[in-house]
Amino acid sequence: VREDELLAALHAIVADRAPRRILLGIGDDAAVWQPSRSHRSVITTDALIEGVHFVPAWMSWCEVGMRAMASNLSDIAAMGAKPVLATVALGIPQDFDRDGVLDLYRGLAGVARDGRCAIVGGDITRAPVVTIAITVVGEVRQTHVKRRSGARAGDAICVTGDLGASRAGLQCLRGEVALEDAALRERALAAYRTPTARWREGLWLGASANVNAMMDCSDGLSTDLDRLCIASGVGALVENVPVAEAAAAAARALGISPEDYALAGGEDFELVLAVKPRAYAHLAARFRARFGRPLHRIGTFRAQPGLASRVDGSERPLHRTGWDALEE
Amino acid sequence: VREDELLAALHAIVADRAPRRILLGIGDDAAVWQPSRSHRSVITTDALIEGVHFVPAWMSWCEVGMRAMASNLSDIAAMGAKPVLATVALGIPQDFDRDGVLDLYRGLAGVARDGRCAIVGGDITRAPVVTIAITVVGEVRQTHVKRRSGARAGDAICVTGDLGASRAGLQCLRGEVALEDAALRERALAAYRTPTARWREGLWLGASANVNAMMDCSDGLSTDLDRLCIASGVGALVENVPVAEAAAAAARALGISPEDYALAGGEDFELVLAVKPRAYAHLAARFRARFGRPLHRIGTFRAQPGLASRVDGSERPLHRTGWDALEE
Repeated sequence: VREDELLAALHAIVADRAPRRILLGIGDDAAVWQPSRSHRSVITTDALIEGVHFVPAWMSWCEVGMRAMASNLSDIAAMGAKPVLATVALGIPQDFDRDGVLDLYRGLAGVARDGRCAIVGGDITRAPVVTIAITVVGEVRQTHVKRRSGARAGDAICVTGDLGASRAGLQCLRGEVALEDAALRERALAAYRTPTARWREGLWLGASANVNAMMDCSDGLSTDLDRLCIASGVGALVENVPVAEAAAAAARALGISPEDYALAGGEDFELVLAVKPRAYAHLAARFRARFGRPLHRIGTFRAQPGLASRVDGSERPLHRTGWDALEE
Repeated sequence: VREDELLAALHAIVADRAPRRILLGIGDDAAVWQPSRSHRSVITTDALIEGVHFVPAWMSWCEVGMRAMASNLSDIAAMGAKPVLATVALGIPQDFDRDGVLDLYRGLAGVARDGRCAIVGGDITRAPVVTIAITVVGEVRQTHVKRRSGARAGDAICVTGDLGASRAGLQCLRGEVALEDAALRERALAAYRTPTARWREGLWLGASANVNAMMDCSDGLSTDLDRLCIASGVGALVENVPVAEAAAAAARALGISPEDYALAGGEDFELVLAVKPRAYAHLAARFRARFGRPLHRIGTFRAQPGLASRVDGSERPLHRTGWDALEE
């Protein structure tokens, strides 16, 4: 059973009731509703499970908390919305110490504070392993909501940063790859342990009428871009991928192509977007002026369905190589 | 470590940031915020963990889902609010079958539908045991928000229904008590497996200016009433407890007092409220006309701190005997 297939079946169970005020339900990074005529709220939820999403030996509890909150803020950013508040349901094993819980909460609270997001609700209970379920509510102007379904053939595919560093960090921790350059190794570990949610970028890009679609890249670009294409009814041709330096080093150590490595990345939490082709140059210049980093153009959406990549002039199909929450 | 003590420590970590639009944070049944000047939204979150909150052998997956959603709708009801939408983060073990997930979701969706609540978001992932984290958002008029902190000395303590049946059902399933009357046993099991959230009652009571405070009774009346008293800075004298017939039978079988049995109940999901003393008779009459059931007056809030009960004229202290999410 794959995650997308199961989510679609669950969607069918709940979809017979779609009240007028729910503007967007299951299937995007966040749902959208209308608390009053002129306001739009967004909501997203995400659970992190010990042993599935993180291994305690690989990071501090504070870092576990930071990572958990960042992944939720990223979903809000992907809608073009501003975080407002979060609730946290925490499950802890019987032998888990009080200091660990407080450290975890400090991590959650620190990232939430940076994102101007208040933690307003908590539930705490016993669980066989540490379980962190976070829900974040944000708000967005009606005209700024960015869905996955808005990409048009001809739009530029853009990403807000380099990819693959988080995967390199994970592989270092797993002992699957060794990065000899200590500084590079540290950057890879930091990318994995304390990723940055692009909520400032998401809010800024949400305000641009030239951005047709947006989502966050949490399960690997090849997987997430496929989801965006399916939602929009388009295909995509990827021509270059901005590979993080640590990812390139890891790929070289493993003897695989840096681009393939980065495409299968996951948890980079960069934003992927569809930009009107004529607007790209101006938007990218403004983005660089605002954030001091490039807005990478990595390819083009097109009418022909499916994902493909073109390297050295020859086109080849691109398969999902990212993370599926239900596969091992 | 007790649940309330740990929640207070976590609250301290997040409390340094309380934006103006967050009107009520951690510590009540739900948090309250202000999406726009004239609107109030509420949000609550709750996680149910296999082996902690339910045992699969004791109920169908559909019932697990019904119970999980009811417990969240109950928190919304306790604020005097109307449910609007829910998100569900589901964790499932690797060997869990697809049909089980669909059944669980049907249970969630059925209760949500009955409560006029749309399920708008889903996350699904691997977990060592079935893990269901639900967040529900509701809305409420500014003047209808009911907090735990509003009870005044002299107010009548009221509950919306009989207590203890859910505990009797749980003890039947655990084999700790045998109810010979088959009909009574079925009612006890139903109270445990498919509790009813009092969202209609909560909405109706929220609209009354004579209700000073409200919360749901999910961890046992003795525990929840203590929380309400602490939040309100009052004490309480309990003089009679409406005991469910199945609970009385279970108490008799165990040789303990039916009132004590019901006070330690938990998961009845009735609402506990503070009603202005002169308004009780009229409110109870209107409640009966509207819902066909009595609004039980079980005692009186008073200035003297602490909980006490008076049976047969003699007063004795009442201790927390309900559920603590972090104790075994």
